[in-house]
Amino acid sequence: MTLTTRLERIPPAEVRLAEDTAALLQAMGIVVVHLFGPPGSGKTSLILRTVESLTGKVRPAVVVGALSSQAEPSPLDNLDLPSVQVNTGGQPCLNANMLREALEKLPLADVDLVLVEEIGTLTIPVEHSLGENLRVVVASLPQGEDCPSRYPEPFAHADAIVLNMVDLQPYLGFDRARFQQAVRRLNPQTPIFELSCRTGEGLETWWDWLLEEARGRAS
Amino acid sequence: MTLTTRLERIPPAEVRLAEDTAALLQAMGIVVVHLFGPPGSGKTSLILRTVESLTGKVRPAVVVGALSSQAEPSPLDNLDLPSVQVNTGGQPCLNANMLREALEKLPLADVDLVLVEEIGTLTIPVEHSLGENLRVVVASLPQGEDCPSRYPEPFAHADAIVLNMVDLQPYLGFDRARFQQAVRRLNPQTPIFELSCRTGEGLETWWDWLLEEARGRAS
Repeated sequence: MTLTTRLERIPPAEVRLAEDTAALLQAMGIVVVHLFGPPGSGKTSLILRTVESLTGKVRPAVVVGALSSQAEPSPLDNLDLPSVQVNTGGQPCLNANMLREALEKLPLADVDLVLVEEIGTLTIPVEHSLGENLRVVVASLPQGEDCPSRYPEPFAHADAIVLNMVDLQPYLGFDRARFQQAVRRLNPQTPIFELSCRTGEGLETWWDWLLEEARGRAS
Repeated sequence: MTLTTRLERIPPAEVRLAEDTAALLQAMGIVVVHLFGPPGSGKTSLILRTVESLTGKVRPAVVVGALSSQAEPSPLDNLDLPSVQVNTGGQPCLNANMLREALEKLPLADVDLVLVEEIGTLTIPVEHSLGENLRVVVASLPQGEDCPSRYPEPFAHADAIVLNMVDLQPYLGFDRARFQQAVRRLNPQTPIFELSCRTGEGLETWWDWLLEEARGRAS
């Protein structure tokens, strides 16, 4: 499926709103990072570990997607920073309007970096932007080495890929080279960050990259 | 969202076809078990461990959902039993027509039990049947204790829930009681099978239940 046929399926108002959001963010010097990944790959943990490291260097905020308002509170709701939960009303992912409304609930004048936690799924179209600056897929060892080839679209369009839970390697016998090859077939250039939010291994490289990207895009 | 409003969104032909499939299966004494779950929760492993145990007691077959025909071959393609792969063409789940077409490719006269591996996701509506007899959610410890409340619909409508990877408990510190409470709030009666496809722990109870359900429904 080509980019064109996909884009044709998105309502024009959504595309226009996404462009408008992108322009707004650029004008304000704010970088929005959209994190995708299956349930349990560690999106929430990664955001927690990332904001605790980046606070003081940038002014982060968080947007959290949820399928319903009856979900248990997220650990991201109680951070000491601006945070908004978006209820998609059962829809499997955020759209441009939901992201925009969430951003407008944040004190944007006091924010440099917004981390957006998408609903946990890999079966959504992601090649169109909602206005965000970076799209990051968070996978983890339990999903298996062939996860990218089974759920290609998010991996093909990611600006970075995080492979979480590398501390489970001894128990899962995960073949990292095979995972990397599967990613490379879809997305030859994208950086892959192998890390563990539990042990902290590999987090620093991810933080450095994110900070550099954020600064590069905001300037 | 009520059952009625959800059902109204399903095209009538899909509903009718699902009813027709259910009648066909009943007439032939075949039981179809539809397995849902996020990527990496172990649907494939559970099917592998289940068919290897049940062969000789029933005549199993397998239907495997895939998002695209470019996915790597599944270990389920090479089993010594009837197997069909369904390509959903990017759709996040099977529909009644895809299931029916897949079933018709199987030698149904020689089959008692069909295990259907759904695309890996928890963000799909599942309260309508495709004609299958049982719906089973396969979750695993890495998804966390609050997975049911974050992705309620599949858990609310499951005839059984499998909690896989209990062997990872020492490394993940998973609170099984909290998981069970989250399930019970959505689905008070459904059996929960805690097991590990890796170590084999707990599999026998699952096999016994499945075999009994299959025999009860086929007779």
